[in-house]
Formats: sequence, C-alpha cells, structure tokens
Amino acid sequence: MSHDTYMQVAIDLASITHGQTSPNPLVGCIIVKNGEVVGMGAHLKAGMEHAERHALAMAKEKAKGATLYCTLEPCSHTGRTSPCADAIVDAGVAKVIIASDDPNPKVAGNGIKRLRDAGIEVISGVLKEKADELNHGFFYHVMNKKPFVTLKMATSIDGKIATKHNESKWITSEEARLDGHKLRHQHDAILVGIETAIKDDPSLTTRLPEGGKNPIRVVLDRTLRISEDAKVLNDDAPSIIFTTNDVSEQKVERVKSKTTLVIQLEELSIDAILHSLYKNNVTSVLIEGGGTIHDSFIRSGYFNQVIHYQAPLLIGGREAPSAVSGTGIEALNDAPRLKLVSVDQIGPDIKAVYMREEER
Amino acid sequence: MSHDTYMQVAIDLASITHGQTSPNPLVGCIIVKNGEVVGMGAHLKAGMEHAERHALAMAKEKAKGATLYCTLEPCSHTGRTSPCADAIVDAGVAKVIIASDDPNPKVAGNGIKRLRDAGIEVISGVLKEKADELNHGFFYHVMNKKPFVTLKMATSIDGKIATKHNESKWITSEEARLDGHKLRHQHDAILVGIETAIKDDPSLTTRLPEGGKNPIRVVLDRTLRISEDAKVLNDDAPSIIFTTNDVSEQKVERVKSKTTLVIQLEELSIDAILHSLYKNNVTSVLIEGGGTIHDSFIRSGYFNQVIHYQAPLLIGGREAPSAVSGTGIEALNDAPRLKLVSVDQIGPDIKAVYMREEER
Amino acid sequence: MSHDTYMQVAIDLASITHGQTSPNPLVGCIIVKNGEVVGMGAHLKAGMEHAERHALAMAKEKAKGATLYCTLEPCSHTGRTSPCADAIVDAGVAKVIIASDDPNPKVAGNGIKRLRDAGIEVISGVLKEKADELNHGFFYHVMNKKPFVTLKMATSIDGKIATKHNESKWITSEEARLDGHKLRHQHDAILVGIETAIKDDPSLTTRLPEGGKNPIRVVLDRTLRISEDAKVLNDDAPSIIFTTNDVSEQKVERVKSKTTLVIQLEELSIDAILHSLYKNNVTSVLIEGGGTIHDSFIRSGYFNQVIHYQAPLLIGGREAPSAVSGTGIEALNDAPRLKLVSVDQIGPDIKAVYMREEER
Amino acid sequence: MSHDTYMQVAIDLASITHGQTSPNPLVGCIIVKNGEVVGMGAHLKAGMEHAERHALAMAKEKAKGATLYCTLEPCSHTGRTSPCADAIVDAGVAKVIIASDDPNPKVAGNGIKRLRDAGIEVISGVLKEKADELNHGFFYHVMNKKPFVTLKMATSIDGKIATKHNESKWITSEEARLDGHKLRHQHDAILVGIETAIKDDPSLTTRLPEGGKNPIRVVLDRTLRISEDAKVLNDDAPSIIFTTNDVSEQKVERVKSKTTLVIQLEELSIDAILHSLYKNNVTSVLIEGGGTIHDSFIRSGYFNQVIHYQAPLLIGGREAPSAVSGTGIEALNDAPRLKLVSVDQIGPDIKAVYMREEER
Ligand SMILES: [Zn+2]
Ligand SMILES: [Zn+2]
Ligand SMILES: [Zn+2]
Ligand SMILES: [Zn+2]
Repeated sequence: MSHDTYMQVAIDLASITHGQTSPNPLVGCIIVKNGEVVGMGAHLKAGMEHAERHALAMAKEKAKGATLYCTLEPCSHTGRTSPCADAIVDAGVAKVIIASDDPNPKVAGNGIKRLRDAGIEVISGVLKEKADELNHGFFYHVMNKKPFVTLKMATSIDGKIATKHNESKWITSEEARLDGHKLRHQHDAILVGIETAIKDDPSLTTRLPEGGKNPIRVVLDRTLRISEDAKVLNDDAPSIIFTTNDVSEQKVERVKSKTTLVIQLEELSIDAILHSLYKNNVTSVLIEGGGTIHDSFIRSGYFNQVIHYQAPLLIGGREAPSAVSGTGIEALNDAPRLKLVSVDQIGPDIKAVYMREEER
Repeated sequence: MSHDTYMQVAIDLASITHGQTSPNPLVGCIIVKNGEVVGMGAHLKAGMEHAERHALAMAKEKAKGATLYCTLEPCSHTGRTSPCADAIVDAGVAKVIIASDDPNPKVAGNGIKRLRDAGIEVISGVLKEKADELNHGFFYHVMNKKPFVTLKMATSIDGKIATKHNESKWITSEEARLDGHKLRHQHDAILVGIETAIKDDPSLTTRLPEGGKNPIRVVLDRTLRISEDAKVLNDDAPSIIFTTNDVSEQKVERVKSKTTLVIQLEELSIDAILHSLYKNNVTSVLIEGGGTIHDSFIRSGYFNQVIHYQAPLLIGGREAPSAVSGTGIEALNDAPRLKLVSVDQIGPDIKAVYMREEER
Repeated sequence: MSHDTYMQVAIDLASITHGQTSPNPLVGCIIVKNGEVVGMGAHLKAGMEHAERHALAMAKEKAKGATLYCTLEPCSHTGRTSPCADAIVDAGVAKVIIASDDPNPKVAGNGIKRLRDAGIEVISGVLKEKADELNHGFFYHVMNKKPFVTLKMATSIDGKIATKHNESKWITSEEARLDGHKLRHQHDAILVGIETAIKDDPSLTTRLPEGGKNPIRVVLDRTLRISEDAKVLNDDAPSIIFTTNDVSEQKVERVKSKTTLVIQLEELSIDAILHSLYKNNVTSVLIEGGGTIHDSFIRSGYFNQVIHYQAPLLIGGREAPSAVSGTGIEALNDAPRLKLVSVDQIGPDIKAVYMREEER
Repeated sequence: MSHDTYMQVAIDLASITHGQTSPNPLVGCIIVKNGEVVGMGAHLKAGMEHAERHALAMAKEKAKGATLYCTLEPCSHTGRTSPCADAIVDAGVAKVIIASDDPNPKVAGNGIKRLRDAGIEVISGVLKEKADELNHGFFYHVMNKKPFVTLKMATSIDGKIATKHNESKWITSEEARLDGHKLRHQHDAILVGIETAIKDDPSLTTRLPEGGKNPIRVVLDRTLRISEDAKVLNDDAPSIIFTTNDVSEQKVERVKSKTTLVIQLEELSIDAILHSLYKNNVTSVLIEGGGTIHDSFIRSGYFNQVIHYQAPLLIGGREAPSAVSGTGIEALNDAPRLKLVSVDQIGPDIKAVYMREEER
C-alpha cells in the first residue's frame, strides 16, 4: 500500500465529519505498522479528542515503531487538550506522514519540529491539495480572523429569484434544494436579511433525510423589526440578530431568549458583522439572501465562494427580483474576480461553484 | 467496416456544412462497394447538387451493385433537380442505408417507397438520433412553417447583461464570444430590437478566424427609428427591417436599399414576424436581444433553444439590466419548460444549452 | 449525507485492512447521530474487537438513538467475543444499515433478526456489490470450506515465463512486480512447486516500500527434496511443506522447525491440499507456479481467480517454458470458463483479472 | 470552424478508404471558402484521381481564393497523373493546410515548395499525429522499401493456440474473429507457412458482413508441397507462393495459374521475401502464423506491429502449441522492444496492439 492510499482514507474519514467540528478543522488519522492498519480516527467535535488520540487509543502498544498518517499537522500547543505531537512522541511512533500544514502562521511547523526533535521521520505534503480543500473555510478563518463566506443563489437562467409577483417557491428542483440543505449542515451559520426573514418566515434549519446539524441562524435587522414569533427565533437552533446601538433596550429584551442572542453594533457593516461572528467562533457562514444582502457582501469584497443553482426556467420582467439587487457595482472592473471550480448537472438544474481568485 | 462507421463519416461530412445549405437540410452521402468506398459527397448549397448526386458522380459505374449511405431519406419529388431516388435507381445501387426520415410528413417515406419499388434493399434509422440532431432546426422549420428560434444570452452569474451604467462590453470571455460567432454562421438570420441596434450600433456579421457566412440581419423597429448609417444596414450582408403599416412610405424609402428589405406588418407580433421570415426562406434565427426582445419571444412561446453563456462575475444592482426584462411571466407555471441538454466550461465561462421540452 | 456516503467510507476503512484480518473478513463501521459522525472503526485482526465494537467504544453514550453503518451483517453467535448484535442492541442504536449479508448460510440473517427483534430498523444491501467484492475470497472460503485460490502469471505476449535457457528474471516491469507483492500481502498463503523452490530459491516474502504482511509459504514437495537451507524455510514467515506419507520420518525431522510445518498426505491432490490449508485457517492462497503447478490447479478446477501480468515481449521457442505446462486440458470444452473482470496498463505491461464464471 | 475541425473530417474520409488505396497512401481533402465547404474527396484507388482532384472537381471555380485541407502533402512529381500541387496552383487556391509531410525523403517538401513559390500560404503539421497514424504502414513501406509487417496472434491466456490434440477452432470470440477479418481487409497481403496451409486448408479471404477486399495470399513453401487444390490457391484472390530455386520447374508449373504466382528465391529468408513483396507493390502484410513463421519474423527483426487477441481460457500442456514456437530468442536482451499502444475488451476477449519501439 502507498502513502496515498492511507492518506486518502484519512481524508475520507475527515470529510464525513464536515459540519460538526467547528470551530476546529476536519482531521482524519490512520496508523499503520508493518503494512497493517492498527488505528484510525477522526476529530468529531470541538472539546473532544483530536483524530490522532482516537487512532493512538485504538493502536495501543502497536503504535510503537508505526507510521501515523494525519491530514493536518499535529498540534503542539497546549489547548483544551495536551498537544498531540507529545502524545505521538510518547507512543513511540517512528514516522509521521502529513497532508496539510497548520494554517496558523504563528504555530505552523511547530508540530513538525516537535516530532523531528524527538527523532521521528516526518514527510509532509502528501495529498496536500485534497486535504487543504477539506478545510479551506477553516484555513481562511484562522488566517483572516473572519468566517469563510459562501453566497448561495438559486435562480432562473436569467438570474431571477421570483416572478414580478414575488412567486418564488420551488424555482429549483428537489435535488438542488436537498443539496442546499447539505450546505446548511456544513456551515456554522446561515445569514439572511430582515426582509427575507419577514417575507418568507423561514426556519433556516437543516432538513436532510438522515439528519444534519442546524447552523446558527443570523439575521441582519437594523431597526429590530423581527417578530418574536418568527420561526428563525424558535429554539430548534441558536440565533443571532445583528442590530444597531440605536435600538432601544426594551426592543432587545422583547426578542432575546435562551437561544437568541442580540448583538448591537455601531453600524451594520459587513466587516463588523463578520468580525463579531468570528469572535463567536463562527468559522463559516452561508449567505442565503435576499438580493440586497448579497449585494452588500459582494460590494464589501468579503466573500469566498459562490454556489449557484440554476433552474431551466426563464422568468423575465423588469420588476422581477434578481439574485443580486441593491446598489450593484459601478464599473465592470470593480466586479470581484471569480474562478469557476466546478459545474455539474444536479437533477434538471445546474450547480456551479465559484471561488474568489484571491483565495486560491 | 460497419454501417455505423460509414454513416458516421456521412454525418461528419454533413456537419461541416452547417450554416451554408439553408433553406435545405445538411446531408452527407457515402457509397461503398465490396467493402471499398467508391463515392462521397455532401449537399453544399441550395440550388446545387444534392449529396447523393455528388457521391454518384464520383462513383460512376461502380455505383452498380453498391451500398449507398445517406444521412437523410433521398428526395422523391421533382424540385429544382430531378429526384435523387430516381438517380439512385438508375445507377443500379443495390442497397440504401438511411439515418433520418424526411421531416415533411406529406412526402416522408416516398423516397424509401420509390427505392423499394425498384427492388433496392433499404435500411433506415441507422444513427438516426445523431443525424436528426444535425437538422433539428430544419425539421422544425419544415413541420411548423416557422424558423427554428435560438435565444442567445451572455450574462453574469446573476443574469445581468450590463452594469447600472450600461457598461456591457466583454462580460464573457473571448472563447465564449468566438463560440457566439459560430452561432451566427450557423443560423440563417440574426434578430435584434431597435434599442440594441441604436445603442450598440452592431454590424451583426460573423467574425471567425477562418471566415464564415453572415446571417441575414433582422431588426424589429416599430416606428422605423433606425439611422440609414446604422452598421446593421451596411452591404456586408442582407438586412430585413420589420416595421408597422403605420410608418410613412417616405421613411421606408429612406432606409431600404439593394441589401435592405423593409417589411411592414399590421402589428409586430412574434407570430407574424416568424411567419414572414419563413416565407423569406429563413429556416433558423438567432435572437441576440436585448432584454425586451427576449421577453417577447419567451412569452410568445415561439422559441426552440436557449444558449446561455455565463461569465464568473457578479454585477448586482436593481437598475442593472437583466438578460430578460420587459413584462415577464405572471406565474411560475407560465414559464416555458426547458430541458438542459449540455453544460460545459468554455474558457473561464459556462456554456449551457437548453431545448424546449415540447420540441424534443 | 446519504447512506451511500457513509457506507462508502466504511468500505474504505475495511479495504485498507486487506491482508491482516484473516481468517476473518474485512469489516468497517461508522456510527452517525443527527447527521454527525460519532464513531468509526474496522476489524483489525482475528482475536481482536470487531469493527462495530471499535465504533461503539468511540461513540459511547451517543450511540443511543444513532444509525450504525456496517459493511457486513453483525455477528449473532457467541464466538471468541460476545455477539456484536447484542452490543448494538445494548447501546440503544436506533437503525442499522448493512451492505453484505453473512456468507455463512447457517447463520445468515440471524444478526439481522436479533436486531429487528429488539425493535431496531434494519436496511440491508446498501452498496452490497462493492462490499461483497471486498470479501469475495472470504465468502468463498466460508461457503466451500476451501481457501480462495488466485493463480498469478507473469508472461510475455506469447505466454512464456522464460527463454529456452530458462532466463526469466525481470520479464515484467517493476510496476507489475510491485503489484504482485501487494497480492502476497493480501493473501494468507503463497504456494509454489518444489521445482520452483529449488530452481529459483525464492524467499516468497512481501517486499513493499511501506511494509506488508508475509503470507504463509507453502511448498508442494512429494519426495521432500527441499534443502533445509532453502530461503522459503527461513524464519521470516511461517512455512508449510506438503509431502506424502511415503516420506521417512527422518527426512521430515530434518526440515521441520519452529516456523516450518510438514504435512503428510496420502496423495498430493489439490483437493486434499486445499482442505488441509482450510483447516489451518488459510482463507486465501496465491499460486505462483511454476507451470506444472498451475496446470494441476487448472485441471482440478479448484481456482477462483487468475491475475495475469503480460509484458510487451515476444520470446518464442518450442522449448521455452509457458506459464501453464504439465498435461494440459484434453479438449477446448474442458477449459474452465473465465470472465475478464478488468484489464489495465500497469507501467509498460498489461494487468488482466479473470474470475471463474461459476464464482460470480 | 477551426483548422482542426476540417482536417478531422478529411482524416475521417481517408480512414474509411483503409485497405483500398495500396500501394498509395490514404488521403482525404476538404476545400473551404469564406467559411463554407465547397469541395471534398478522398483518394479511392491506385491509378485514379488523388484526393485533391476530387475536391477541386467539386469546388470548380469556387476553389479560387479558397483554403484547401489535405491530410498529406500534395504531390509535386509527375507520376501517372500530373502533380496535384500544380492543379492547386492553377485553381487559384489561396491557402493550403497540411497534416502529414510526404514520407519519401527525396521528395518531401517539394509539394510545399511548389505551392509557396506560387504565393500560396501553407500551414503544415495540423493534426499531424492522427494523420501519420493513418499511414504508418505506408510511410514505413516508402522509407524502408519493405512492406509494413503485422503479426497477428489469437491465443489463450497462457499463449496457446491449440490444445495438445491440436484443437484450435474458436479459441477467440466471434467479435475478435470479425476484427481479424478487418485486418485482412486493411492489409495488402496475408502470409502463412506451408504447415498452416496444409493443416487448416484456409482460404485466407476477408469475410465481413458488408464486404471487404481480399488480401493477396502468400504461402512460404520451401519444397512446394502445397496441393493444387488448396483453398488458398482458388481464384477468389491472387496468391503468391515463395519457394526455393531447388524446386523443379515441373512442380512450379503444377501450381502456378492465372491468379497464382510462384516466386523462387535462393533462400527463404524473411529479408528476401519482404523485398520481393515490396517489388510486387505490397505495402503491408499480415502474418497469421503458425508458430514457426511467427518465430522467424520475430528473430529476423522484420516486423512493425503485433496485434494480440487473448481469450479468457487456460489450456496448458507442455505439448500444446504456443503462438510463437520455432527456435525462440536466446537471451531476454535479444527480444525486440515493443510498446503497448492500446488494450481493449473486445467481446469476452482482450485486444492489445503493440508497435516496435524503433518504428515510432
Ligand atoms: Zn491535536
Ligand atoms: Zn435529392
Ligand atoms: Zn461481531
Ligand atoms: Zn497528387
């Protein structure tokens, strides 16, 4: 068996934990001795064992002299748990194969140094690209102190999200909508504007046949117009409402609850909102509109990924709302540069994924 | 060699004549005797030899006892030329392999019957689907007495064709634009609204590195506002201007010329315009907008294909024009049903092709 | 996430344990609760925990109400460990998704019945084909009380394994030879004839860059001619020599050792040898020739798979040995029916895998 | 349309004439003016019009100013026809696009020079690799003054062509046998040894559902043992028997006929035989065995291609004949170096194509 074979399974293990490890990254680990697998594991949840710990626990004394495959550089700093690098050294592992480096520039390389100082052979960069892909949101988050932002749009061919009479249900297919719920599961938070919250009264929870994690629901609501009965404030999941300092304490009291946090900012700038979410351990946020919210994010420049579901439908009408409305960019040169990463058919629709060029 | 091998090359021959045979269909022909190719040809231009004639001329006396592969049922009616079915019989061909039937229900099967009556063995339907694909525009045209209509759109991800300041040059990439010029080569006519003709002053000719056929340029101009200096009226290609009966003869005289035809209708309905184009031997028309024109075609229901180039760009802005504007549909249920036929990357952009469900 | 996604990772986990679990099958397990992975594991070695146990140990109390994915029906009989089905019931798992049924017809379905009796919802057959593929050797072993037999051949295009002067080194490429070592790792035993053992003096161990398990080395040696210094009898791995009852005890004493077992049979029939290996817990055996041994297996009908590496070489020569020599089949109709399962380029060579038709 | 698109169809046209143009190469031609196809053709048979002539005849006066696509450099020497280069110049063609250069080093480039001297723009090398592939046999023939030699083998997995009782019918499938008949159609000659001619009494003609050209049947028969009633001497196709000068004139008279040529050589060396075939305008020869003949060709080094059909069958037996028998090579280093060009499933069998490394 090759390094790639084992690392690929470590990546597979990590990938099925997408959505549950935040604010920690996805990590998988496999331990091999004399060509036999002796341990395996993934990091399952913040506050719980790192992937390496699970694998070492399974391997027990067989870890001595073994090769450990880990999708991310083992940690070397004392956090909630003692450093994994120390545990690997203590277990007598002979060789460590790593895919991605630690994204935090302050500690990157420390784990590898710790291992090498103890005489362990370390090879890094095996299947690095695939492993980096797993955690691009997390890596962005760590390096930029902001959540990774995904704009999600579901439109007709001509970019419309509803008819002129605001009929918008079921533009895209069930397959596309199901895929959209996976995005909710995979992001820490989901964000909408107050217009969407009032007009559609969505619950913004994850509805997948086999279950899924609900994201934190975030509403931007300058004047705190939201109803205390809004579904988005129910106790299915935590909610955060961003409003301004101008709003009266009375109004705030009306909506805040055990599951609803109200955060008041000087001004509802995208920058300030993302910074506040970062401080609340949100590593990734899915923006589900409406058009004015999308426009604000695009013009702010603070977004990393666009996921576009396009239904085989033409709606037309000058008054029918588009996926991005608001002010819009002034000149074509002001438009952020995107790169098409993938385009696929999903049911009868198209799913296209774009990344900001700067982010890759 | 198999029937499929020879028929495929006959289809290849036909396919490279796309754009030059109108109002006739694309047809290719190969003649084989004792496992050796003895003749080949394609129909090159209306008024000239049919594909079978070219192939028989090359085969000469070797056609006797040979097998003739033809992408379309040989003609049996006396048109500008004597029927190919007779020529095939006269040449002593032993076997005829056909891909597509004649689309005209009135004469479909007559060619085959003529051949069989003369004792020739006929097999039809070989690679039928591929051969039908070659001529779907032509088949529609014959059966519906209207040109085959392709809506072409080049938009940002959010369906915009320009910024709010109407900046629209170069939204899509050079690769996409080049592909768009192939569409011009392949359609008999290209149609725009007067707004586009005035605002952009386009020549609407085909600009391909290796040359290409210019389509007939069609402008819808209710009040005949077009300037006699408009590029679309230059003598690079013929032009047709549709206007109403209300327009003064003086105005008409001003713009009509050796290459420009002015057609006055009671009313500029899509139905009437397409019928008039049909009578002018236009089998296919490419609609290049703007948004109001697209909206008219969509709501009329008279379109067959949508080709969408989508650039990796977000423009936004309530005032920025969308690919389809005008009145728009009332309810989602009114939207015509489309089927995604293909989606591909073309340079940095996406190219998606949709067909009307009813047409397939 | 779908059932397929989780089951695929369970299969991936099982697949990297290929070669280390014998006489047990390869099994992987994933536990999911509310869309989050809470446990994972694979069976690593006979005598150690089953896959389900590892996964339940990781999940702890989160197993309650969870969905457990297992590549093989959980065991229900009391073996070396208490039944996994009971452990799953005790942990409060709500739903069990299974890929392959238990291959032992006597107990197949008992595990599922035990789970259902306890009120657990069971879905079986998810990715069954892929999971069955993992264990086809094991399944054959259980159902037929014989090891799964793979014939390995490395030949020139014309089926030769050496020149007439018996030069045979490096016919196939390094890539093919490395792949051949993976086969050794994946089989419990490797078998050669005494001619090969004497002529080539091979060690028959597994030489892979990242290590690998050595198979039990088996030599067929009717008159016990093997030298006690033969590499195949070194203590790198266990060895078994099959000889006949006619051989003197003295001769037997000479070669038997702590790692070398000598088994005396009435007659060296393939049937008797395979039965004896089965009783020694050998679930799979790789036959590496030479030509007479291959011929015996082919004519006996006791083989399941043929793996053929073919080098781009022509050797020729009536006297140059072929991959299969011996007596050969009498009539073409006597040849066992094989089915080509896959054919690929491997370095400059071809690798083809065939299965006995009856076995699929 | 791009150069590649038109050249590809020219190649397609040439490819369906495989087997009928010998000793001339396969050539296809397309003429395009202003983006419209105005002529097309292929060379159909030695002594008849070259491809360019057919295409120019179809294009008539439209060739003036057009672009001509030709898969092979137009001829410039006066042969049976006046040079095509002159005809292209006379027709007023503006641009010539070429795929392959003329293989004859003495005249290569002359055609291009003639065109350029007349002021025609010439681009060469477009789809060169594909076009070269079409004619690799012909190119070899011209440059080496020998026919291109293909060894065809149909064997079991272990390289056998029959059981020990010489039962050999239907080892490979009908699909493989049909493919083998295509090879006969595509080669000028087919060659077998006298043993095969006597033992199997084959007719060696081409049997394809849609017909095909019979190759010249060649038998190597040192002592002229062949029966005058042998099927290989029937008048379905020409035959050539190679024998030695030692054979009596009486014996020669007995077998020679209107369709059978007897050639006496000093010695039946492969070199002399191939040279003689070359002088008889044979550009390609298919060797169908038996094993001794294959061995002679392999050891002589005079072969270019090996086509191997392998059936999913194991035959075994030291006495069962292999595809290559005879003397065989002495040392592995003496084996000619081959390169696997393609490997595919064909029905239940494998088809592998190998080329001599030196020839590519
Ligand atoms: Zn750690
Ligand atoms: Zn006709
Ligand atoms: Zn168990
Ligand atoms: Zn010529």
